[in-house]
Amino acid sequence: EDVQGRADSRRIPINKVGIKEVYHPVRVKDRSRGEQHTVASFNMYVALPHHFKGTHMSRFVEILHGNEREISVESFREILIEMTRRLDAQSGHIEMEFPYFVMKKAPVSGVESLMNYKASLIGEFHGGEPELWLKVVVAVTSLCPCSKGISDYGAHNQRSHITIKARIDGHMWLEELIDIAEQEASCEVYGILKRPDEKFVTERAYDNPKFVEDIVRDVAVRMNDEARVLAYVVEAENFESIHNHSAYALIEHNKTAEPVQGD
Amino acid sequence: EDVQGRADSRRIPINKVGIKEVYHPVRVKDRSRGEQHTVASFNMYVALPHHFKGTHMSRFVEILHGNEREISVESFREILIEMTRRLDAQSGHIEMEFPYFVMKKAPVSGVESLMNYKASLIGEFHGGEPELWLKVVVAVTSLCPCSKGISDYGAHNQRSHITIKARIDGHMWLEELIDIAEQEASCEVYGILKRPDEKFVTERAYDNPKFVEDIVRDVAVRMNDEARVLAYVVEAENFESIHNHSAYALIEHNKTAEPVQGD
Amino acid sequence: EDVQGRADSRRIPINKVGIKEVYHPVRVKDRSRGEQHTVASFNMYVALPHHFKGTHMSRFVEILHGNEREISVESFREILIEMTRRLDAQSGHIEMEFPYFVMKKAPVSGVESLMNYKASLIGEFHGGEPELWLKVVVAVTSLCPCSKGISDYGAHNQRSHITIKARIDGHMWLEELIDIAEQEASCEVYGILKRPDEKFVTERAYDNPKFVEDIVRDVAVRMNDEARVLAYVVEAENFESIHNHSAYALIEHNKTAEPVQGD
Amino acid sequence: EDVQGRADSRRIPINKVGIKEVYHPVRVKDRSRGEQHTVASFNMYVALPHHFKGTHMSRFVEILHGNEREISVESFREILIEMTRRLDAQSGHIEMEFPYFVMKKAPVSGVESLMNYKASLIGEFHGGEPELWLKVVVAVTSLCPCSKGISDYGAHNQRSHITIKARIDGHMWLEELIDIAEQEASCEVYGILKRPDEKFVTERAYDNPKFVEDIVRDVAVRMNDEARVLAYVVEAENFESIHNHSAYALIEHNKTAEPVQGD
Repeated sequence: EDVQGRADSRRIPINKVGIKEVYHPVRVKDRSRGEQHTVASFNMYVALPHHFKGTHMSRFVEILHGNEREISVESFREILIEMTRRLDAQSGHIEMEFPYFVMKKAPVSGVESLMNYKASLIGEFHGGEPELWLKVVVAVTSLCPCSKGISDYGAHNQRSHITIKARIDGHMWLEELIDIAEQEASCEVYGILKRPDEKFVTERAYDNPKFVEDIVRDVAVRMNDEARVLAYVVEAENFESIHNHSAYALIEHNKTAEPVQGD
Repeated sequence: EDVQGRADSRRIPINKVGIKEVYHPVRVKDRSRGEQHTVASFNMYVALPHHFKGTHMSRFVEILHGNEREISVESFREILIEMTRRLDAQSGHIEMEFPYFVMKKAPVSGVESLMNYKASLIGEFHGGEPELWLKVVVAVTSLCPCSKGISDYGAHNQRSHITIKARIDGHMWLEELIDIAEQEASCEVYGILKRPDEKFVTERAYDNPKFVEDIVRDVAVRMNDEARVLAYVVEAENFESIHNHSAYALIEHNKTAEPVQGD
Repeated sequence: EDVQGRADSRRIPINKVGIKEVYHPVRVKDRSRGEQHTVASFNMYVALPHHFKGTHMSRFVEILHGNEREISVESFREILIEMTRRLDAQSGHIEMEFPYFVMKKAPVSGVESLMNYKASLIGEFHGGEPELWLKVVVAVTSLCPCSKGISDYGAHNQRSHITIKARIDGHMWLEELIDIAEQEASCEVYGILKRPDEKFVTERAYDNPKFVEDIVRDVAVRMNDEARVLAYVVEAENFESIHNHSAYALIEHNKTAEPVQGD
Repeated sequence: EDVQGRADSRRIPINKVGIKEVYHPVRVKDRSRGEQHTVASFNMYVALPHHFKGTHMSRFVEILHGNEREISVESFREILIEMTRRLDAQSGHIEMEFPYFVMKKAPVSGVESLMNYKASLIGEFHGGEPELWLKVVVAVTSLCPCSKGISDYGAHNQRSHITIKARIDGHMWLEELIDIAEQEASCEVYGILKRPDEKFVTERAYDNPKFVEDIVRDVAVRMNDEARVLAYVVEAENFESIHNHSAYALIEHNKTAEPVQGD
């Protein structure tokens, strides 16, 4: 007997039901090298109408195993639609989080090294066109304008995380969001820095002090200017070097729902 | 010079700015013992209008230090309003997460032991009456109906987390949400179980099998019946004993926005 | 001027100095498929004699970038020796932790699915032959003998982690340690189970109850019998389904230092 | 029937068996205020001889509930001995980890604020006198000497964790270890800093640059000088503001086993 397929009389639909934290190796298309191998954590859910008792949990994992193909923004949309159909659902939701690597050149020596970013693809399908969000957490340097302004020398600085989550129309590379975050920080960070590089990033951060408020605003300006971004959430978290807590700021904006902010 | 008070020309308001992960000892009012001492992690944010460059980060921490009083649902609302006013903000947001303890009696022997729960108070203030959410993560036992149905003996079971987040009108104890979660699981869990207790909970779970879908629906029915709950999110996550991933379900419902679900 | 190369007068040697939590994509040789792509977190340290002020941090990351080759138990030893030499050190230490995947067949249906394991290679080099440790965390099912014994029906069971860390002589596959852990649990776990598989694993666990003490002992017997294992630490942690804490046991044994335990 | 008390024929003793991650509210004696309320996570283990099948897990939790008294370095030793006796064991081990708070004065304004530290008491009992370790993780500022030396202005700095674990003879306050860590960093950190304080800490860190190697050595010198410290492990981890990984160093020394290091 199919226990999951039984009728249910509680008259309560379920928004999301499925599997959480399934790890699976994937290949992701990247801007510079064609594709990269990484390991992703998947959350896969569908909506369940009120009259069905349960969903079929094993099908979610089967879908992962059936997709040996390279994952791109385009094929992720297809997997989302396929999952929703195979589970006979009205709507589906997939989150895929993975370490993502970009080869960067040190600013003076040009020495190359890999930087890692925590990236996600997040898809929502309710029929019609799937909604697709890109998300990436970018480690950067922030340097405090107040500390620089009041001190005779030096200025406290620290590692910060800039998180950009953007709903996109069409195609966008994770690298494009990463570039925006790195350009709007006090300075970007690298895997390998030789001596002249370290001098460069130290002085660059000192020349370019930013509060957490400045970082989220400067990234938001860039997101407002980018036509492929339909909605976004921008966060900055400074792991303050003079405190044992973080300074934090967030801006969210849905371009499809309201006029441009600040007017 | 007050760098934070400078004018800003980017015309971008900030939804949330403040401090994150500040730890502070607190006393929380509880249902049975009057109050309990615990340690909370605070996130405290205000909205910043587009024309101000920055907020005053040190004031957030000062507010924590100025509140030696016991924290209750009522005083939490006051701290939220006080923070918003002291930061000259239009809106404020506080999240306070803490381990919360309840003394429970084992089901047969009556032996008492403390159970710990991850609890949160979350407040939003936009003028008028603050919105207050209670949130609690409750560890329980779930036992799989399918495994019981198809097996000649035994049934896989596991630790599960039921998470209830509820926007409340007036006062509600965390213990009331905990009771609902524990009553709607296959069985509740305890700090100390003697032999006859262990027999009881083993048989109780076997007599009361539930899918993750059943758990969230049965909790949702209770939340629908509770007039003080204005909106809720119910989650259940089973740390499956036969898989290396979780089964998961979520129901969310805003009673103030739509007719009752399932109709 | 080379600040790191300066003399130091404190007369205190440093046991370990280097970099921590560097992420890097790697290919690892596996038993069945030749190699697999994964992402590793590296800790890389050397000892620093008392008369040197500092080490050269950028060289550690350079070593990772210089090793595009597939990583195996053999090549890991070479990287360790290379690092120690390039840093002019007397001793070196590398820890490389990564998700590792094994394709498993469900016990009745034979359906294939990937299982993920948290694996590590850990190397110590003090001149001579490097010491190499394999470590793997294996998720399994444990079923409580006491609960089964006292209950009229059912028995509490849960997900457990068996961790084996073994110093090896020559070559050993991670899969060999994984096999031992899975064979000595109440039952192994899988990514995909069809209905007859779920019946099988439910009954198999019920037929094979084990305390956390039994699990570590049964794994220790296997490690004692394996000539390539020179020393080991075996841990079992049951995420108890009737409590909100874990049951835990550990056995450690160095075969090269003492006679066989229990005599 | 007492399943746990049965004989066991595998002839394998177990080094540690017990419970892990039990949360319990505690009161801890502190240097300035008499006592503070906090919440601790306990790991409690005993050794099990080869001829016993299992231990009695519920007794561990009962011991926590029977100890309503304030926990100090002295009473912790008593609980350890009591646990070992009640479990009929030859040896016992307890780890108790908790957030610990110290009221600090800002360096110029004198404004008071609480700082939080992750602290642990760790006890080992094998008959005779119990071994007691204090452990504390102290967040501090580190500023890079190399970056300062090569740059025309500025210097990268960041939050760092100094971890001191010390086996002590007699009594020692956690605050004594915290003081040592904070004094040997580039600068200490605070919960609240007013403008003149921020100027002070910025300039203080710039005047006092230290590599991770310097920090562990300077703390080790202090530990060598402290007669109540019998053995220690000192770690420093810099969450580098110019990289996405940490710089790390460790010194360990057992004064009771060898002559003073560096000779």
